[in-house]
Parts: sequence; structure tokens; C-alpha cells
Amino acid sequence: MDISEEIEKANRKAFDIMNRGKAVLTDFDFARKVIPGMKENIILHAGPPIDYADMIDPMKAAVQGALMFEGKAENLEEADKLARSGEIEFKPCHEVSSVGPMAGITTASMFVAVVENPEFGNRTFCNLHEGRGKILRFGATGKEVLDRLNWMNENLGPALKEVVKKKPVDLKSIAAEGVQMGDELHQRYRASSLLFLSSISENLLELPNAKEIFKFIADREQFFLNLAMPAMKALADPADGIKYSTIVTRMTRNGVSFGIQVSGMKGKWFTGKAEVPIGLYFTGFSQKDAAGDFGDSAIMETLGLGGLSSAAAPAVTRFVGGSPKDAIHATEQGYKITYGQSKDILLPAMDFQGAPLGIDILKVNETNILPSINTGIAHKKAGIGQIGGGISHPPLKAFNDALREYAEVYGL
Amino acid sequence: MDISEEIEKANRKAFDIMNRGKAVLTDFDFARKVIPGMKENIILHAGPPIDYADMIDPMKAAVQGALMFEGKAENLEEADKLARSGEIEFKPCHEVSSVGPMAGITTASMFVAVVENPEFGNRTFCNLHEGRGKILRFGATGKEVLDRLNWMNENLGPALKEVVKKKPVDLKSIAAEGVQMGDELHQRYRASSLLFLSSISENLLELPNAKEIFKFIADREQFFLNLAMPAMKALADPADGIKYSTIVTRMTRNGVSFGIQVSGMKGKWFTGKAEVPIGLYFTGFSQKDAAGDFGDSAIMETLGLGGLSSAAAPAVTRFVGGSPKDAIHATEQGYKITYGQSKDILLPAMDFQGAPLGIDILKVNETNILPSINTGIAHKKAGIGQIGGGISHPPLKAFNDALREYAEVYGL
Repeated sequence: MDISEEIEKANRKAFDIMNRGKAVLTDFDFARKVIPGMKENIILHAGPPIDYADMIDPMKAAVQGALMFEGKAENLEEADKLARSGEIEFKPCHEVSSVGPMAGITTASMFVAVVENPEFGNRTFCNLHEGRGKILRFGATGKEVLDRLNWMNENLGPALKEVVKKKPVDLKSIAAEGVQMGDELHQRYRASSLLFLSSISENLLELPNAKEIFKFIADREQFFLNLAMPAMKALADPADGIKYSTIVTRMTRNGVSFGIQVSGMKGKWFTGKAEVPIGLYFTGFSQKDAAGDFGDSAIMETLGLGGLSSAAAPAVTRFVGGSPKDAIHATEQGYKITYGQSKDILLPAMDFQGAPLGIDILKVNETNILPSINTGIAHKKAGIGQIGGGISHPPLKAFNDALREYAEVYGL
Repeated sequence: MDISEEIEKANRKAFDIMNRGKAVLTDFDFARKVIPGMKENIILHAGPPIDYADMIDPMKAAVQGALMFEGKAENLEEADKLARSGEIEFKPCHEVSSVGPMAGITTASMFVAVVENPEFGNRTFCNLHEGRGKILRFGATGKEVLDRLNWMNENLGPALKEVVKKKPVDLKSIAAEGVQMGDELHQRYRASSLLFLSSISENLLELPNAKEIFKFIADREQFFLNLAMPAMKALADPADGIKYSTIVTRMTRNGVSFGIQVSGMKGKWFTGKAEVPIGLYFTGFSQKDAAGDFGDSAIMETLGLGGLSSAAAPAVTRFVGGSPKDAIHATEQGYKITYGQSKDILLPAMDFQGAPLGIDILKVNETNILPSINTGIAHKKAGIGQIGGGISHPPLKAFNDALREYAEVYGL
């Protein structure tokens, strides 16, 4: 076989694995009990590796808030000192089968969702959804934020554990149905969050604290975000480490850099500068206030959702100033850089074609088309939170570097 | 003013009234307590006026089942005899501010929804949603059907009454949001039913029997049908009786004939033969098994939803064998025969244009384009129920007759 045949065979395999997988929500538990290697002194963060000192302010603040949540610091200053002391180990979520939106800060005592891919036996994890406004993942750390995290740990997590233990939830099916109902599953989760709540309601309503749990979820339109992300990661992970494959298995940002990983070069990060997203800002804010793009949520685009499925949700494109035509265009661009189409995620506006699945570094390098990523925009200062929504792109450099390395490894 | 100016002015007024109205769910109660003139010996049915003897079998059976539900007959034979005795008065739902899907049979003791249009002070009514399968509205009458109706009267209706008394529900907003989420609101109510349930859940969960009520609604994907219909009727009714107006205010079928009414000729039915819908049949059934088109649900198209908003729900068009392109075409045809566009019901796939609103008999006569109506298909024999879904059209004759009469009345 010549190398192009090897690549085709490997990419077909990676694509098939991503396409064939399932993602089932089976448990909720403390991070330290379920995430492999998780310890008291480890803090997980979004994006490729980064030192605490180099993090953007909202991510630093989220670290500080998490240390207070863990009872390791009394205040932000103490937490900052501890974070710089060398006693804490910082790790990308992605390196321990996890993901987290925005700052992605996950610590040992936090409840996380557990998602299984029964086709391949792997598991993935994600922290719980706080909602909008003042929340840790955007770098807010006040009493209200910590109280909510404690409530979630004591009430939401255990309740959801009981409910999904009784009846696991097929997250891929909910994602597929959400896409039939106007969600692209990165910005917009209106339908999928309702579908999730509806799917658990029968068992949820059996619990003594059903009312408050129900209300917490019902009040959060993006509740499904923190379930869709580990679902997509559960589909991606088994496609990692396939020799010769040029399919992207991870795309993620830490506010400073944007990193990708490629199946055929397992474990290697290729990075470039994280963009400041272009988008629509809430009243009083503008692009000069915005933090660099951050969060593991680009796992949605890695699996063909979000920006690549823009055609499913013209309302999202409209939110950032575009038209339904722009939404369709973003998906058409997606087809130019992906291996094939999802068999399960079908886009009504594209004549029910499957979502563009399996971003190929060869195609990105050939066309210079970068996947559109739909994202929330955070203020660059800690504690202010979300200031808009928009579109970002990975840096072309990451794809160029990946191709260069690939050529060296495989003698292209 | 010449007559064309009179017509334009009148149609603008009718259109504005339909467009400006609101539809708020404010109560549930026994039909006899809320529907004007409702009495023990009155049976309301779908469509234009029809004698019992002339009804199609599923509608006859629904009458018989309703008489048993009312305790006026022990069995179907007794009920049939009573229905033919002259003691029962049969009336179209539409003539007492009501609507009912399929057979539309509504009797004095049934719980109905009460919808108000606060802009114009009018109220409308509709019976409660039974679900699919063996149900009275398709002519099923067994113990299971009557038991369910009794349970609905004793549990569902009173619970919903309590809930909406605490917090009325803006049905037009739910319809508008449903259309953003893949519902066209005649065949497909997946999103709007979830949105409705979510909107009442906080107060619903306060009730002692919350769990069973919640489950009953959550299990019924078309639950919102019996709320959307009186909502649309609440918007239509104030536009009735505007001198010179050629806007259609009612479209409805009784299985034998299809009737329309026109604003400028209040109270007059123009009818033609009800079509057998063209569509997709469940396994084992074909068009020769199908009943003539029936139900008041064409009130949805009268207000620009259903077939006229096909572009919102390509999944529905696909269900009956068409493509997203066909769905957009059906909506484009709708624009050719309507006065204008809804300001609230916006269609993402049509670049967020409003739904085609205000069917004009002049435009229908000029173009010979008939509005597409999305409908369920019933077996022509009683008790078998739904056998498919498809598309029907009103008879051109009804529009021709209306124009002829209009010319006589107004000297066109």
C-alpha cells in the first residue's frame, strides 16, 4: 500500500469509530471517585496544557474559586498563593478523559457526569452545568457561586445519579433529535435541554426533592451543554491513536492557545494563538473587553456539531448577525474539510444530509478552510462573566504544524 | 371609494386583527359551564353542519361514545338510536366559539380548555387531548377510551385548571417558539408540547397528583394540538364580520364536506366535497381504507400554520414522502394566496419571514392555488383510528361559491 491508501484506510477507520459509537449517560459522582488518576491536588482545566501563571484572568479566578470550594483556601489571595506554590498540579481535562466548558476547572470534590460509549467501552466526564450569569466557568467566585456549587454537589448531582442509575440516558439520540429542533449544540441547547429533562422526568419526579431539581434544570437553557460535551468526547476518544490517520480528535482552547490533536499522532498537542471571537456583544461591551477563546466545548465541532452544523440553527447565526444562508454556508464549508457525514446527526436544512464529521488536517491544509466554532464570549477580567456570543476559528498554524510533524513521523 | 379600495381596507383590518391578537390559556372547565349555549342535549362536532345520519362512521361512533360517556346510553346501539331520535341537537363546534380535532365531538360534561384573546375580549374552547391510538376523536369507543375520558375529566382537567389559574399560559408565544424548533403546528407538535409542559411544570409539580398528570402530558407528543387550535380560533374570531373583507376566517371538515367562512359574509358556510388525504399510510393500510378528511384542525392553516408553514418542519414533509424543497414550496404557495405575513410566527428557513397569514378568496380564485393542509388520516370504519398522515386541500368549489355569493352581496 502506498501512503495515500494507508491514510484513506486509517481515516475510514477513525471516521467509522466516531460515527458508530454511542454515548450513554450512566452515572454522576465525585470527580475523585471516577476520573482516572484524579487526586486532591490536581486541578483540571480547559484547553491544551498551561501553567497557572500564564492563564487568562477568568481561568485563574476559576482556579481560585475551585480551591475555596475545596476548602483549601479562605479567600482569593490565599488561593492564588497556593496555585503558585507548586503544590497543585494543573492538567488539561482532555488528558484524563474529561471536558469542561469555558474555564473547565474541575476539582476532586466536584460532582461530574459519567458518559459511556458501550461500543468501545470507554468513559468520559464533565462537571455539572451552573447556568448563566455569575458562574465559576466564566471566572466568577463570589459566595453565590460557591453556594450554588455546594448545592449542586449535595442535591443536583446525587439526584441525577439516582435517576440515571435507574434509567441511563442515550445522549446521542437527544443530540440527534435536538438538531431536528433548531439546536446546533454549541450555542443553542433549547430543544435538547428540554428533551433531556423530559427523558428523566418520570424517575426524577419520584425523588423527595424533585421540585427543586426540576426547576434548576428547567431554568437553564444550556443544561445539555455539559452532557453533550462528554458525549462527543466519548465518541471521539476511541478514534484516537490510529496509525496514519489524519483525522482531528481534539480541538480545545485555554484562552491563550488553541490546541488540536490528530488520531495518528496520539497525545501530541499542536497549538497556535487563541482568537478573540467575532460576534455580538451584550449592551455596554465590545470586542476589546473580550477574553481569548477558551473552553473544551470545541469538542462539539470536532464531532460535526456547533459551527459545522450551523445549518440546523439559523437562529444562532442570526444572533451573531448572519442569515440562514450564512448558516448553510458554514455547514457547506464543513463538508469541504471533513471525511464524511454523520449517520445519526441529520440536518433538515441540508436535505437531511448528515453533519460534517471527521475534520481532516490534510483537507484543512489543502483548502485553508478552518472550521467555524460557535462560542460564548467571556470578559477578559475575572468575575464579569459572559459578555456575548460569536464565532471563532482555530489557528491555521496548529494544522500546519500538525501536517509538518505528520510528514516527519510518517515520511509523507 | 371604489370597491377594490373597500376590499383592501377591510382586508387590512381583518389581517391586522388576526395578526395583533393574543391567545392566552386561562381556564379549564366543563363544556356546559363555559361554552355559550351549551346544554345536555347538544353535541358539538367538527366541520360545517351535518346531520347525524349523514356523518362518516368514525364521527358517528364518536357521537355514540360521547353519549355513553354522558351516561345517556348503555351501549352503542342505544346511543345510535338516541342520536337518531331527534332529542339530540348537533352543532358545529365553530358555531359556539369552539374547535375539536378529528371528529371534534364535544359534550356538556367534558372538560374543555378556555382560551382568551385579551386584545379583543373573546374566548374559545377545545376538548382535551387524548393521545394517539384508540381514542374517541378517531371513533374508538371501548372501555379503555371511556375510562380515559373519565380520568381526564376527574384528574387532568381539574389539575390544569388549578395550574393555569395560577399562571395563564401565552399560547401564541409557545406556537411562535415551536415554529423555531421544527414544529409546523398541525402534524408536528414535538417542541410546542414540551414547551407547554415546561411552562406549567413549576405550578404543576405543586399538586399532589403531579406525577401522573405530568406523565400523561409528557407521553403525548401532540398534546399542544388541542391548545393550539383554540388559540388560533381565538385569533380568527374577532376578524369575522368585517364588511367587504374577503379573508377566510374558518376552514373545517366533517368527513363529508369541507366548509369555509369568509369575514365579509359572517356565518355563511361555503362547502364542497371533503378530499381523502394523499399521504403515507401505516403498514397494512392504503388510501382505499381512508375516511374523508375531517376535523376543525384546519384552523391552523387558516392562521398560517400547518401546511402553510411547511417550511418550518421539513420532517413533516418528509413523513409524507416530500423533501425540504417541497416544504419551502408549500409555504411559497401560501404567500401567493394570503394577505400578508405574521409578525409573530417567523419561519427560519424562509429567512425569518412571517408565516403566510390571511387566506384571501380573491387570490385563491385568481391563482387556483389551494392551501395545503397537513392532516392525520383516519380509517373509514369506526374504532380503528389513525392509519396515516398526509396532505389534503379544500375543494376549489367552496372558494368559487364564496366569490359568487360575495359578488351578489357586494355587487362586485
